Amino acid sequence: MPPDAAAASAPTAPGPPAGLLDRAAALDREEPLRHLPSRFHRPEGLVYLDGNSLGPMPLGVPDAVADVVRRQWGRELVAAWNTEGWWEAPQRVGDRIGRLVGAAPGQVVAGDSTSVHLFQCYVAAARMRPGRRAVVADPDAFPTDLHLLASAARLCDLEVVAARPAEVPDVLARRGGDVALVALSEVDYRTGERCDVPALTAAAHDAGALVLWDLAHSVGATDVDLDAAGADLAVGCSYKHLSGGPGAPAWVYVARRHQHEVDPPLTGWHGHADPFAMDGRYAPADDVRRMRIGTPPMLSLLALDAALDVLDDVTPVQLRARSTSLVRFLVEALEAVVPELPLAGPRDPARLGGHVAVRSPEAWGVVRALAGRGVVGDFRAPDLVRLGVAASSTTHADLARGVVALRAVLDAGEQHDPAHAVRSTVT
Amino acid sequence: MPPDAAAASAPTAPGPPAGLLDRAAALDREEPLRHLPSRFHRPEGLVYLDGNSLGPMPLGVPDAVADVVRRQWGRELVAAWNTEGWWEAPQRVGDRIGRLVGAAPGQVVAGDSTSVHLFQCYVAAARMRPGRRAVVADPDAFPTDLHLLASAARLCDLEVVAARPAEVPDVLARRGGDVALVALSEVDYRTGERCDVPALTAAAHDAGALVLWDLAHSVGATDVDLDAAGADLAVGCSYKHLSGGPGAPAWVYVARRHQHEVDPPLTGWHGHADPFAMDGRYAPADDVRRMRIGTPPMLSLLALDAALDVLDDVTPVQLRARSTSLVRFLVEALEAVVPELPLAGPRDPARLGGHVAVRSPEAWGVVRALAGRGVVGDFRAPDLVRLGVAASSTTHADLARGVVALRAVLDAGEQHDPAHAVRSTVT
Repeated sequence: MPPDAAAASAPTAPGPPAGLLDRAAALDREEPLRHLPSRFHRPEGLVYLDGNSLGPMPLGVPDAVADVVRRQWGRELVAAWNTEGWWEAPQRVGDRIGRLVGAAPGQVVAGDSTSVHLFQCYVAAARMRPGRRAVVADPDAFPTDLHLLASAARLCDLEVVAARPAEVPDVLARRGGDVALVALSEVDYRTGERCDVPALTAAAHDAGALVLWDLAHSVGATDVDLDAAGADLAVGCSYKHLSGGPGAPAWVYVARRHQHEVDPPLTGWHGHADPFAMDGRYAPADDVRRMRIGTPPMLSLLALDAALDVLDDVTPVQLRARSTSLVRFLVEALEAVVPELPLAGPRDPARLGGHVAVRSPEAWGVVRALAGRGVVGDFRAPDLVRLGVAASSTTHADLARGVVALRAVLDAGEQHDPAHAVRSTVT
Repeated sequence: MPPDAAAASAPTAPGPPAGLLDRAAALDREEPLRHLPSRFHRPEGLVYLDGNSLGPMPLGVPDAVADVVRRQWGRELVAAWNTEGWWEAPQRVGDRIGRLVGAAPGQVVAGDSTSVHLFQCYVAAARMRPGRRAVVADPDAFPTDLHLLASAARLCDLEVVAARPAEVPDVLARRGGDVALVALSEVDYRTGERCDVPALTAAAHDAGALVLWDLAHSVGATDVDLDAAGADLAVGCSYKHLSGGPGAPAWVYVARRHQHEVDPPLTGWHGHADPFAMDGRYAPADDVRRMRIGTPPMLSLLALDAALDVLDDVTPVQLRARSTSLVRFLVEALEAVVPELPLAGPRDPARLGGHVAVRSPEAWGVVRALAGRGVVGDFRAPDLVRLGVAASSTTHADLARGVVALRAVLDAGEQHDPAHAVRSTVT
């Protein structure tokens, strides 16, 4: 059942406020980057509000991937490592992503998972601050961040000090002299709340610590500016707001001033200064390439490369403006139409990333019932309904339809339907 | 210029022995798995002897990948993690690969690079043998194996003891009580020489040590049987003899008896016992899934999944028999046709993996000149011409044409041509 029909059949008041869909349509006509969503495949009859989990497919990707498979691999075979620029792809893709997070060229490489890149950074940071034993991290961070940090702490004899972003300055004031690293996410993966990257970076530096930013939920959604903030290390995901494809390779940023000393634990041959000398002794490349490890998954990496074409003519500031317009519209619509579901994060769009979450004790059933009405959001335990706002592919009309459907679900009590008990996955 | 024409124009004696191409054709008519090469794209006019570096493309892969991109990602979007079995793909693909290396189901997962999987195993092995500080490794191993081992040794306070496979029993006799791990490759990436997996595994176990086998150059080429040998840990590559595509995800094997205790350093959320509980405390899955790390690169992983279809109706023993026939033919042809280039490894095909190397002080120029004649082999510093034998995609005729072209290159002195100075890449 398409969402509009669903809304029309909602049995009870209040129902959607008059004009919500009209206002969305007007914003979609006026918004400067209104052409972006047409660059994606938007399945008929679906309102997709989960681009913060898996971004939708850019229309240019299938042909690009077919070319990689049929022509580059199929016909050029091993020569494609040279003739098609495969070997340099981690840096080329890294630079394209870097532009979107304020990183000048030569500071980002792509290729492994966010988890692997995080581990590289934790251990490398500890080695860059010998004698300091504490790592400050948000206990509400995405679990993999905490898992890998705990592992790095065990290997490097570190202590993990839990502090939410707002508590970090106090922790630094108390024990800053022992802090090697402050590791935070710009955008909370549950609530969408954004923290102040420049201020927290400066606070860490004042204490002599390094900062590692997890930008998994930021890149493509916020206008974070790593170079301007003076960040040290960062990692991010490419399959969310960058629409790089399922499991698209993640990326890692090392500020140029640290590249001569950064000393990651995964010393794979792609990070060697001269990989084809086949020397058994490791000598790291003299720049960010030393963060490379093994042979990257080229089909996935080159799909990401093609996906980035969508944003070639867009600046991060422009993209952020579009994101802000969408997020503001969603927050206001939620407050007006489903006031009984409280926002999990702030209401100021400037303090939100690329998704908005509302709380419901029946969040699971709500998300499943929405899916039954053709609206895809996602559930995060224990009580969050997350609605994704992909700055490049979501429209204001999508958001209006999603909120209207949410009203209809609640009015019909569909969240209680036992048919909505199928497990959903993946962040 | 096609290779036959090249051979016909070779200016001097000895030239190809009468009947080499005829004998190849006869073997290709009689060999039981003669239908396998037709399952691959074999570019017209090219003799591809580098399947040990990047295997050629199975014909079914392009459509499979197009389906993953256009339908699964494009239309099903995030739901595909459930509906298309994405979440379980690392185990499903792992089991399919496991069958080819003698691993019963439930002992292999695929998803990261060989380098990353190696690091997981080195640290995990050290933790399984507390109190033992030595790791025995081949100083001629592929460099990334040594690089990651050195890094693990630094983190875990291990000593790396260099020993070629033939020297391992002596080292174990001398200091076995201190050896945590013996880490070896079944097939030498340079010479193709194969070592005795059951004997070396038993020797290590007799000393109380674990064994890690690097099967990068084995899987799809030898009939290594991990379970039968009682191996502990293994890793391998999927883009060589498995033809999984450029940078296809590698895989890791943990014998079932070790799965409850294996304790890898990269504790990503995909290895968690309950990933979607989003618990910040790590609790490993109770089986081989604990070797999973972050979200795997699905386009690359599912391309590999499709590539494995080629071998569905083939046993490792059958594949090895075909490999042996090809390798024997190549060794004999090289000895007969280019006797001045000594074999780098043994001449007995039972002691070789899936490639054969000859030595030449002008190896680089030889490889480039061969490429000029449409024959793709590869160079390994300082003096090796490697000729790959892909058990599933190479024909005896390919090998005959390659050897004939090699004769022609040497007769014409083409290896001295300065035009042949372009750098080749990737193992």
